[in-house]
Amino acid sequence: MRKISLQPIGILYCDLNNAHNAPKSTRESNEEGVIEIEPKYIAGLDGISAGSSILVLFWFDQAKRDVLHVHPKGNKNIPKRGVFATHSPMRPNPIAISKLKVLHLEGNRLTVQGIDAINNTPVLDIKSA
Amino acid sequence: MRKISLQPIGILYCDLNNAHNAPKSTRESNEEGVIEIEPKYIAGLDGISAGSSILVLFWFDQAKRDVLHVHPKGNKNIPKRGVFATHSPMRPNPIAISKLKVLHLEGNRLTVQGIDAINNTPVLDIKSA
Repeated sequence: MRKISLQPIGILYCDLNNAHNAPKSTRESNEEGVIEIEPKYIAGLDGISAGSSILVLFWFDQAKRDVLHVHPKGNKNIPKRGVFATHSPMRPNPIAISKLKVLHLEGNRLTVQGIDAINNTPVLDIKSA
Repeated sequence: MRKISLQPIGILYCDLNNAHNAPKSTRESNEEGVIEIEPKYIAGLDGISAGSSILVLFWFDQAKRDVLHVHPKGNKNIPKRGVFATHSPMRPNPIAISKLKVLHLEGNRLTVQGIDAINNTPVLDIKSA
């Protein structure tokens, strides 16, 4: 199947530096961070403001891409399952979906809350939640 | 920002051939189709069965990638908004998220209901819904 090429629209900056300590989902997280959008895409943010809920698609560039079976939520008491039946970060195309709250928007910098990704994670897309 | 390269995990086959006539969201659709997964990824489907709800990430390869403002839902009575504040298929990285119901699974073929994408659309990922 043919390859697809894409470029991140931005990068997440936050205090989480280790995937093993990061919250397992946005529901468990109050972490704040800043998404810095490439300046050429700023116009795409029109309509987003403090208080907005957004879906952010991250590219989990540190996730293993060759694992097809995992314990859901990393819990070894739950039998392994296919990655497509879970939300594991490990999967052939490690795209993660996070529902985040916008605390502040200034220029190309979105301050967001609910982070379950680590510092320097590339952002592929943002949608209204 | 550096490029990311990925390969689809599968392809959607269905009777919808024109993006303009396709349902605007899965909520408006009863359309059925078949997602054919690359054989090497079949193990990733373990745990999915008839009745499962899944999130499917599609690559909308026919969507314009250079549009940053759109009328939400294509409705010209609604003022234009930045694409990141909408669910428009047009966006720099046209990844769409569909919540679909699994009707049947056999080998690498998932029969699904709720399609809002057209025939031959590449599938990037599947998650539990």
